[in-house]
Amino acid sequence: MALKSLNKGWSITGFGRNPATLEKARQIGCIDHIGSSLAEAVAQAQWVILCTPVGRLASLLRELAPLLKAGTIVTDVGSTKASVARAAARWLPSSVHFVASHPMAGSEKRGPEYARTDLFDRFPCIVTPTARTNPDALRQVLKFWTSLGMRVYQLSPARHDRLLADISHLPHVLAAALVRMQTPQTLELAGNGFLDTTRIAAGDGELWRDILLDNRVNLRHSLQKLRKQLDQLLHLLEPHQSDPLADWLNQAAQKRAALAAKKLKQLARE
Amino acid sequence: MALKSLNKGWSITGFGRNPATLEKARQIGCIDHIGSSLAEAVAQAQWVILCTPVGRLASLLRELAPLLKAGTIVTDVGSTKASVARAAARWLPSSVHFVASHPMAGSEKRGPEYARTDLFDRFPCIVTPTARTNPDALRQVLKFWTSLGMRVYQLSPARHDRLLADISHLPHVLAAALVRMQTPQTLELAGNGFLDTTRIAAGDGELWRDILLDNRVNLRHSLQKLRKQLDQLLHLLEPHQSDPLADWLNQAAQKRAALAAKKLKQLARE
Repeated sequence: MALKSLNKGWSITGFGRNPATLEKARQIGCIDHIGSSLAEAVAQAQWVILCTPVGRLASLLRELAPLLKAGTIVTDVGSTKASVARAAARWLPSSVHFVASHPMAGSEKRGPEYARTDLFDRFPCIVTPTARTNPDALRQVLKFWTSLGMRVYQLSPARHDRLLADISHLPHVLAAALVRMQTPQTLELAGNGFLDTTRIAAGDGELWRDILLDNRVNLRHSLQKLRKQLDQLLHLLEPHQSDPLADWLNQAAQKRAALAAKKLKQLARE
Repeated sequence: MALKSLNKGWSITGFGRNPATLEKARQIGCIDHIGSSLAEAVAQAQWVILCTPVGRLASLLRELAPLLKAGTIVTDVGSTKASVARAAARWLPSSVHFVASHPMAGSEKRGPEYARTDLFDRFPCIVTPTARTNPDALRQVLKFWTSLGMRVYQLSPARHDRLLADISHLPHVLAAALVRMQTPQTLELAGNGFLDTTRIAAGDGELWRDILLDNRVNLRHSLQKLRKQLDQLLHLLEPHQSDPLADWLNQAAQKRAALAAKKLKQLARE
């Protein structure tokens, strides 16, 4: 929807598993055409943007390899980047230019009915070039996300996956664990705080399964870091540790307040 | 503010540490008078509502004991209930009627400038009577919170503290730990999901220190329950466990979606 609204020149062909979803996307105006097959959908494409769960990307790249014309730019929107970079290096011919992307926007909701022209506006997008990335294709992909209003960062695939384990994959797992341990009695008493804390746990299970499995080595390390913080807390959870416990909490409160102020500024419409 | 707007008959005297806050509250119209001393503020009171951090409640009840007239109803708004019930039993004369309350409304923001007439509307309030609670005073306290629009529950103080450790105190601690373990590099990539998950961590450190210390036995137990969930997850974080991992996540997603639907219905304005 953002692409149709901001880059008027594009003609967009959608292809996917579910014909009803594609038809709805066409009616809403997110896409112009519906591909009749993967081969037909990408045959004339100058750009191909892969939007599947990350567990499907490697096999999809393998299927796409013989179907793409020389010079096509391929990118993706997956939440992990090391495995897709490996798969692209393995399967795509050198005449096709793959540049992996992770636009960090959206919500726990799914479907074309939640499409918004400003979905990407001011949110971060991480692009993860490697030594074999074509420089001109990289420039075009950076320009593409910038044209949708995103703040673009470049990181190596490995570094992307390490950082995202801490800031995104671990929080998801914690929210899910927190919901799972509740009983009907405790849920009856849930307030707005609990709803905020666990919002991301409503995300699709299969989608997240793929992400967590793909990034499991980093996620295990993130869980260790969290455990260290909680061990600190348990140590401070004694009346004679009252002052350092308040410090532990206030440091978090100040860090959170600074983050909120910064994000508010970044997201502020001029 | 809700009391002034919904129960017009009340004359409200405010008393507290900070004269500037009290003056602001009076100007905004949350309170009618400012007490010149604790003794003067409560001398003629029919109701006394204690709104201090929970670590201050026991000593405050001790100070109040000789200052209250017979028949006065005393309640509080603290986030833990076993310790305040013990303190009231110990310090207050039997002519004064203490009924502990926990209105679960508000936000991480503090000060009279965030007062709202609908702050309590449709949110839960837990009242925790004991064997020694005066039945008529209990009825009046239940009616009081109901008149502010709250859904009122009765629980024993011990059960309140057990349930709240799971649904409120543990989520707070997790949000704080999650913020603490981040670096400037990961925070640069924080999205809306992370902001939601950690919102409650912005709460005041001293206030939360008191709550966590007071409820530390239950909180340690809640942390054990969370650890069990995370151990389950770590066990499932292997490619051959792909299906049970998706189940683990989907169970959380469905539970969270059901909770959101229920709360939305409870909070819907007719």
